[in-house]
Amino acid sequence: MSNVQRYDATAGGTVTFVNTFDVHSAADEFERVFADISAFMARQPGFIQYTLCRHIDEDKQNRYVNIALWTDVESWRNAVRHPDFQQHAKEIRSRCTNEANMYAPRQSYSVR
Amino acid sequence: MSNVQRYDATAGGTVTFVNTFDVHSAADEFERVFADISAFMARQPGFIQYTLCRHIDEDKQNRYVNIALWTDVESWRNAVRHPDFQQHAKEIRSRCTNEANMYAPRQSYSVR
Repeated sequence: MSNVQRYDATAGGTVTFVNTFDVHSAADEFERVFADISAFMARQPGFIQYTLCRHIDEDKQNRYVNIALWTDVESWRNAVRHPDFQQHAKEIRSRCTNEANMYAPRQSYSVR
Repeated sequence: MSNVQRYDATAGGTVTFVNTFDVHSAADEFERVFADISAFMARQPGFIQYTLCRHIDEDKQNRYVNIALWTDVESWRNAVRHPDFQQHAKEIRSRCTNEANMYAPRQSYSVR
């Protein structure tokens, strides 16, 4: 279709942080704590966007993923080294296990 | 900062498909096959966007993730049921193992 465009996603240096959570606290409590840490991250240099998503399967409602875009990996590293981040991170860690991975975009399609 | 906005991401019905790949073929071959299947998916009703990303760690260069946005889960299901998808999927499956999960957005922050 003419309104779909392919982008070369290898330029620009942006990175995509994918953090998967298995939550063992109440979901609304986890989401509240996550909103606090996200408000902090959103103020740091290099932050572009994040979305916290919850698994749609009924038997996987304790599974979340955070997908975050940053201008560059060094900005993200600076943010997580910040003392305020460490305090927020403690609040998250006590409520879940997680697996975090940092990726760089290769290909992208988007409806314009 | 005033240029960061928090969105309520629970409305609208969009879904986020997160598919993680451990690739055992050559990377450029995997990316080429993936581009073919993506061009097909991008033409299906309900497709919004996808980005294929590669792990940044040197020792995890065979790890990719595809993050795809769809208007709703039923549109995505219709796309993967399509016979043309099944042919493309065979080409992908012979080159990797994968773990796919479908999520619904809960919270989002974005720099405007």
